[in-house]
Amino acid sequence: MKVVIVGGVAGGATAAARIRRLDEDAKIVVFERSGFVSYANCGLPYYVGGVIKNPSELTLQTPESFWKRFKIDVRVLHEVVSIDVKEKTVSVKNLNTGQVRVESYDKLLLSTGAMPTKPQMQGTDSHNVFTLRTVEDTFNVKKFVELKKPGKVLLAGGGYISLELAENLAAKGIDVTIVQRPDQLLAPLDKDMVCAIHGKLRDKGVNIRLKSSVEKLQHENGKIKAILKDDEPIEADMVILAMGVTPDTILAKKAGLELGIKGSIVVNEFMETSETDIYAVGDAVQVKHVVTGEADLISLAGPANKQGRIAADNICGDHSIYKGSQGSSVIKVFDLTVAMTGINEKKAQKLGIDYDKIILSPLSHAEYYPKATTMTMKVIYEKSSLKLLGAQIIGHDGVDKRIDVLATAINVGLTAVQLKDLDLAYAPPYSSAKDPVNMAGFMIENISKGLVKQLHPDDIDELRERNDVILLDTRTEKEYNEGHADGFVNIPVDDLRERLNELDNTKKICVMCQTGLRSYIACRILSQTGFDCYNFSGGYRFYEMIEKDACAFGRAYQCGMDRKQ
Amino acid sequence: MKVVIVGGVAGGATAAARIRRLDEDAKIVVFERSGFVSYANCGLPYYVGGVIKNPSELTLQTPESFWKRFKIDVRVLHEVVSIDVKEKTVSVKNLNTGQVRVESYDKLLLSTGAMPTKPQMQGTDSHNVFTLRTVEDTFNVKKFVELKKPGKVLLAGGGYISLELAENLAAKGIDVTIVQRPDQLLAPLDKDMVCAIHGKLRDKGVNIRLKSSVEKLQHENGKIKAILKDDEPIEADMVILAMGVTPDTILAKKAGLELGIKGSIVVNEFMETSETDIYAVGDAVQVKHVVTGEADLISLAGPANKQGRIAADNICGDHSIYKGSQGSSVIKVFDLTVAMTGINEKKAQKLGIDYDKIILSPLSHAEYYPKATTMTMKVIYEKSSLKLLGAQIIGHDGVDKRIDVLATAINVGLTAVQLKDLDLAYAPPYSSAKDPVNMAGFMIENISKGLVKQLHPDDIDELRERNDVILLDTRTEKEYNEGHADGFVNIPVDDLRERLNELDNTKKICVMCQTGLRSYIACRILSQTGFDCYNFSGGYRFYEMIEKDACAFGRAYQCGMDRKQ
Repeated sequence: MKVVIVGGVAGGATAAARIRRLDEDAKIVVFERSGFVSYANCGLPYYVGGVIKNPSELTLQTPESFWKRFKIDVRVLHEVVSIDVKEKTVSVKNLNTGQVRVESYDKLLLSTGAMPTKPQMQGTDSHNVFTLRTVEDTFNVKKFVELKKPGKVLLAGGGYISLELAENLAAKGIDVTIVQRPDQLLAPLDKDMVCAIHGKLRDKGVNIRLKSSVEKLQHENGKIKAILKDDEPIEADMVILAMGVTPDTILAKKAGLELGIKGSIVVNEFMETSETDIYAVGDAVQVKHVVTGEADLISLAGPANKQGRIAADNICGDHSIYKGSQGSSVIKVFDLTVAMTGINEKKAQKLGIDYDKIILSPLSHAEYYPKATTMTMKVIYEKSSLKLLGAQIIGHDGVDKRIDVLATAINVGLTAVQLKDLDLAYAPPYSSAKDPVNMAGFMIENISKGLVKQLHPDDIDELRERNDVILLDTRTEKEYNEGHADGFVNIPVDDLRERLNELDNTKKICVMCQTGLRSYIACRILSQTGFDCYNFSGGYRFYEMIEKDACAFGRAYQCGMDRKQ
Repeated sequence: MKVVIVGGVAGGATAAARIRRLDEDAKIVVFERSGFVSYANCGLPYYVGGVIKNPSELTLQTPESFWKRFKIDVRVLHEVVSIDVKEKTVSVKNLNTGQVRVESYDKLLLSTGAMPTKPQMQGTDSHNVFTLRTVEDTFNVKKFVELKKPGKVLLAGGGYISLELAENLAAKGIDVTIVQRPDQLLAPLDKDMVCAIHGKLRDKGVNIRLKSSVEKLQHENGKIKAILKDDEPIEADMVILAMGVTPDTILAKKAGLELGIKGSIVVNEFMETSETDIYAVGDAVQVKHVVTGEADLISLAGPANKQGRIAADNICGDHSIYKGSQGSSVIKVFDLTVAMTGINEKKAQKLGIDYDKIILSPLSHAEYYPKATTMTMKVIYEKSSLKLLGAQIIGHDGVDKRIDVLATAINVGLTAVQLKDLDLAYAPPYSSAKDPVNMAGFMIENISKGLVKQLHPDDIDELRERNDVILLDTRTEKEYNEGHADGFVNIPVDDLRERLNELDNTKKICVMCQTGLRSYIACRILSQTGFDCYNFSGGYRFYEMIEKDACAFGRAYQCGMDRKQ
């Protein structure tokens, strides 16, 4: 059997090695357009910032090492330019010589990845405008940064790579501005959660321009003037285009393979394309979303590697199945860890799912053990079935742990309430006896049993307008005086039973505290004494994060915080 | 409704607060024998060592704070001495006044915990011999350490608390010796894994005496001479007895409640005892083990807290079910993190389960991102069903994350192979594209599909005796020369295909590398070219850990390592 693999990174490299382990006799040829094989794709932004110092760390594998260990014939700087599906051949261009030759295959695997979305605009074709896809791109960016010492860098786009670059460039003292079309960075998260990230970037001196996009790059004397849509122009010494990625499927399209979302390759659960003996994996393919069951595009390294292994199994005659992706991901944003899995609220709305959500602010580990930090955790679930839909967490230590536990729970189809039963490992340096994931289960159980009703930050403007609502802050007087949401009156939870007569029980009561715990206790007291009571989800801590963000972006209306500091 | 709760820590305190949230009108009385309520049980060893500096951190809750927030009547220094099941009353002794009075209940909850196992021996009743259960005990230990400045401390017992104490005392420059009856510390782990912990303790100057126990403590001039069984006596200035715990169920026994293992209280899934309206939770009760389905004793804070909440629900008329415990736990041992979940190999053997196991040595995160560390992971599963039985991990960063993912997988009954499908969050600072948990799934799938057969360190002595076995080390020549297992010959994996003729294919080949990855590749090459081949599980890294430990404990036979350094 002769297997030809197009693309020698992530899925392609994984598949090649697995095929060899399964079939010592197969002839395996890998064509890679760049000069490097199986390189550390996800490490590229960290090389730019010098966190990864030695470029050889990014390129631990070489064509030679692949040959020595696996007898896999890796040809870098070779671009497959067409596939002849009937003849079962590919045409390959040697990028050194320009020569094109034909190579036959019994099985073909496409691992062509995704390419940075390059907007149709003037001025992108310049020595100071970059994208980041390959090792070569990275070397170019790094060389420019070190030699030209740009004072100002504009990042067009606000996704994972952009944020990692922002951190790495800011660490070098560079003035970074991110321009982003939507009204938030990091689209996989919901806007309420992303406020914490906006705040962190602002604290670190990174400029953010939302609801805007680069329309044109004007060049003069080595300087760039970026003309923005709906915003003032920005001057920069360097522009990096990081506006997301598009499946690189020109080859597949030319060969007549069935294509899906954004031109991605349609594959079945065996990673087979619409053509016999042609498989595809990684960022180039359309996957089934574990939560929605729908076709989706999820460009992440984990799925790519898993798919590579599965394609290899099937190429070698086994029956391995890819069960789908759920978008589990994590990113370091300065000292923050930001993680998510499953679908977000935006997606649930789009799909018309009747969902609910909780926000909690648990500690990373026992409060009394040093260095505990607070995280913000959002869990989304379907109201009727209580099925877990997704989660987002922002914090420091232990964020990646909780997202992986939640990812596992979602993967196996647990209900949100079942989170309370998970038997997780506890010792004071690592967690609390009630782990944050258990806490999420407790909270959702309380809601599902009708023990507490919720309101969310979105509701607050409307609530302020109404006469039949009392806005109640149950924190201590001191906390309240240090800053509270407009319109809220203060009765500390510990005084509430004695001061019930101050509240009009014909009115709806919306209760807030710092994180939602004391207000939940207050709600239990109130609803058992005849009040119609609602817990303000996420508490003042979450509300303040959202309000601060709105203020920072110059929201037209007044900020809803009364801060006396 | 009047609820009386015996014991105001962990499960008892949780239940009390939950009952109030569910029933604003209930009369709730908590009797706590010690002087403190809802204290930080698991933090006690860290206060001794000064990691937790302020004693008030351990006792954040007070009877006053419970009353203010929950209108719960907490009476510390009150010991319940008997229960009248028919009259539904308890007799309570005020430990300040000695007065006994009778208190009635509608529902009674026993959260009496477990007490340190105190051996029947001479000399334990002395001012320099301690146990660690309550805050008072901790204050006493701490006071003794600070005032008397003991140079040598003997810890009798080698479980969680003992190891945490060892770390905290050694950090103060104290010469610590642990004496332990079994042939390993930390019984919940298997011996092969525990070697790493023994090694760490030795490195930190902690003395370990295994297969021995304290028989008698002789006192002279404030010094203690501990007479050991099967070992030399030890001199010490202080002895702490930490030989495990026994359910504290004197009260339950006197009241005629059904008792189980080690006198623990038998409860059903609603946390109800054999007597109507009497519930019990925490270390005092017998639980169902999630993996074995059998009755078990699992003294951990996580289960205690969950059970408290469930008992409260049922006391208030709801139907909440406790699904069982699986012994998920984690402990910091100096800079090591040690974690486990499910059952260990010893237990699987005892139950006659036909199990298999894998050992892997994955990195905490991407190799190219700074500060990646290696962990040792053991996963145990049932051979026929591939059902996950348990896992143990030792390492640094990310150990607690992986154990919680595995704990979740075990909790929901995943097969070991399904671990490969989990969609976990990856970025270079947090994980690898193939997460260690995924890797475990890949490895077990390979074994279950017959792609590779395994041998284990236990098998090696027998293999060395046999003439029909070739012991093959496939690491590089350099690695081999720096140290290898006796009897192994060296052919680097990258040279193997060219040197197959050096191997006799009528013989069984046992292949070792550093961690098991290159030897797996070698096994695939060999078995596809007609050899009967076995992968040496865990590699030289694991083997060396076990051998070093055997050597350190003065194993009678020669150590099986040829180390040229």
